[in-house]
Amino acid sequence: MGNSIKRLAILGSTGSIGQQTLQIARALPHRFHIVGLAARKNTDLLAKQIEEFKPRLVYYQKSKEVQLQPANNKLEFLPLEEIARHPGVDTVVIATSGKSGLNPTLAAVRAGKNVALANKESLVMAGEIIMSEANLYSAQILPIDSEHSAIWQCINGEIQEADRLILTASGGPFLHNSATQLAGVTPEQALKHPSWQMGKKVTIDSATLMNKGLEVIEAHWLFNIPFDNIDILIHPQSIIHSMVEFIDGSIKAQLSYPDMRLPIQYALSYPERLPNPQLPRLDWSHIQNLNFEQPDFNTFRCLKLAIESGKKGGTYPAVLCAADEVAVELFLSQRIRFTEIADLVEQVLEQHQVIANPSLDDIMGADRWAREKVTQLTEGSPC
Amino acid sequence: MGNSIKRLAILGSTGSIGQQTLQIARALPHRFHIVGLAARKNTDLLAKQIEEFKPRLVYYQKSKEVQLQPANNKLEFLPLEEIARHPGVDTVVIATSGKSGLNPTLAAVRAGKNVALANKESLVMAGEIIMSEANLYSAQILPIDSEHSAIWQCINGEIQEADRLILTASGGPFLHNSATQLAGVTPEQALKHPSWQMGKKVTIDSATLMNKGLEVIEAHWLFNIPFDNIDILIHPQSIIHSMVEFIDGSIKAQLSYPDMRLPIQYALSYPERLPNPQLPRLDWSHIQNLNFEQPDFNTFRCLKLAIESGKKGGTYPAVLCAADEVAVELFLSQRIRFTEIADLVEQVLEQHQVIANPSLDDIMGADRWAREKVTQLTEGSPC
Repeated sequence: MGNSIKRLAILGSTGSIGQQTLQIARALPHRFHIVGLAARKNTDLLAKQIEEFKPRLVYYQKSKEVQLQPANNKLEFLPLEEIARHPGVDTVVIATSGKSGLNPTLAAVRAGKNVALANKESLVMAGEIIMSEANLYSAQILPIDSEHSAIWQCINGEIQEADRLILTASGGPFLHNSATQLAGVTPEQALKHPSWQMGKKVTIDSATLMNKGLEVIEAHWLFNIPFDNIDILIHPQSIIHSMVEFIDGSIKAQLSYPDMRLPIQYALSYPERLPNPQLPRLDWSHIQNLNFEQPDFNTFRCLKLAIESGKKGGTYPAVLCAADEVAVELFLSQRIRFTEIADLVEQVLEQHQVIANPSLDDIMGADRWAREKVTQLTEGSPC
Repeated sequence: MGNSIKRLAILGSTGSIGQQTLQIARALPHRFHIVGLAARKNTDLLAKQIEEFKPRLVYYQKSKEVQLQPANNKLEFLPLEEIARHPGVDTVVIATSGKSGLNPTLAAVRAGKNVALANKESLVMAGEIIMSEANLYSAQILPIDSEHSAIWQCINGEIQEADRLILTASGGPFLHNSATQLAGVTPEQALKHPSWQMGKKVTIDSATLMNKGLEVIEAHWLFNIPFDNIDILIHPQSIIHSMVEFIDGSIKAQLSYPDMRLPIQYALSYPERLPNPQLPRLDWSHIQNLNFEQPDFNTFRCLKLAIESGKKGGTYPAVLCAADEVAVELFLSQRIRFTEIADLVEQVLEQHQVIANPSLDDIMGADRWAREKVTQLTEGSPC
């Protein structure tokens, strides 16, 4: 607290969230010190980051072709989990995408770290395990997603739990499209999000609204709110990032320009807020209206599938995540149509034999099963 | 705290805020017990309130014609200040209008009470004195105005002060009117507010936007924010009740249907929130957009005059309040035009010899001077 320096490890430092976290560390060097960096494949960028931020701890996916040379003798190459639990780290930023975030998240939680969590899949797949371990080891989960950061900011200081969460959604690039129009969507079109700059997987998930469904499951675990008390509201401008309704009917909302650096910085500086001239401010002389509408669950079937999986629980959410991850890859490589993402996820969920109260092994097993199932279902796909 | 009963005294129990406070006490009898009621003239309604709520302490303006009969032997008739500081009272609701709220507010503050403050004039006239006495006597000022309640809810739990306050304003019934149109406004038209049900004085002040100017001065004192960091934003639907911007650029807003019972109840229940089925909830399936625009300081001159008075300080805000109170009465009795409210307030402010760091006597003297000045200026008024 106060003016002390926080020592950060960023897992996924070459991705969109990782790079923006480093922008904050660059802008506020008197508050944040980078002690760990980890990336999978983008070793060129990782090498530059190591050069600039001089971390002690590094992870990258080694291959015969790429061998990172330590910039100095103090550089240690460690597995993700060891960086996550390293005693020299205060806050672990989990900015990896997909299921690779799960094990480092658990390692950081079990070491009682502050865990700044941008990876959705960890909580969706294993929310119950992560939250109960966080409780056991007094680890704090600090959400980085703009929606969950908004909710967290709104409940801050309240002595009672929220009565209802209202997650806002831009609606993505295909808001108001019909199912027929959606069938013809190309990867190029789906990668153009109207308000957010993000990685490819989350951008496609935003276009199908799967992303919003995953966020509902995340919110359920982070804030201990029943699924029936979590609403979704389409708000195309992405200015209100989410809202919380309390038992007296009062609602609090958090607003800002859609820029991920604000929720990232809040997770790092909490409970303080830090001035950062690089963060944009809302200019109300240019905002004439904020629009709202109800989501179309029939056209955006991924949203419905995600919420149903969350409600059913057990290994369903892990299957949802895995099937979606593979389906999105198939769509991006033009092997399936946009609407087949929902078709595939639905079929895999239907065929899944759920395990209630799953262990981590059960969850990983369900993940593997779902990936194989999508592959089976699409072998010889005509698209 | 917990499930204890709070003992309330309501000064101004027959006015709009007073009656709504009693609605809350009626809905939540296990949490609020009415021990004091005070009204000026509406003794018929006061008698009914005494019958229903059986307070121990009562004040009313005695006259030869009206003599309230005690409903039981335990009823004590006391001056406002004595009710405000009575040891049997936990929270004093100051719901009187005009300068009559000032002395009871100070009495309650000096007795270290919780002071639920709906009366604007006290803080506008003597904000510095009230806030420093509240600090000295550990009294808590709990704002009831919807805008200040919104700000208070948004800063709750933050460990740093707000960077900027954004007070929203409906714009009143004459939003977008020209100065020429305003000149022809009748009292009947001015008393029809588009979103709020309030007393006559505050309804006219809302139509001139004087009310918003007074709220800026109140906000300055309540939250210790410089005038230059308080913005006004026209928001005709009155759904967002105000917003707070923090040093990282994050904004929090409080939203609800425009119903004064919510901020009243929050002031009474703070730091808890209480479920009350009578309070309306926002229905997002019926809200398609929220609109915003900048205020027109040239047409709504009272707004500008109020903010300037606040910035200049000293006895100016007391003069502003007094001149406005008399001018509004003259307008309601059709002795002056709507636009002459601003004319008169401006002239009186121009002629005032300000006293810096005024005592309470100086403030009361400035109040008397301003009232006489308006009367002088309008004697033989042709309207």
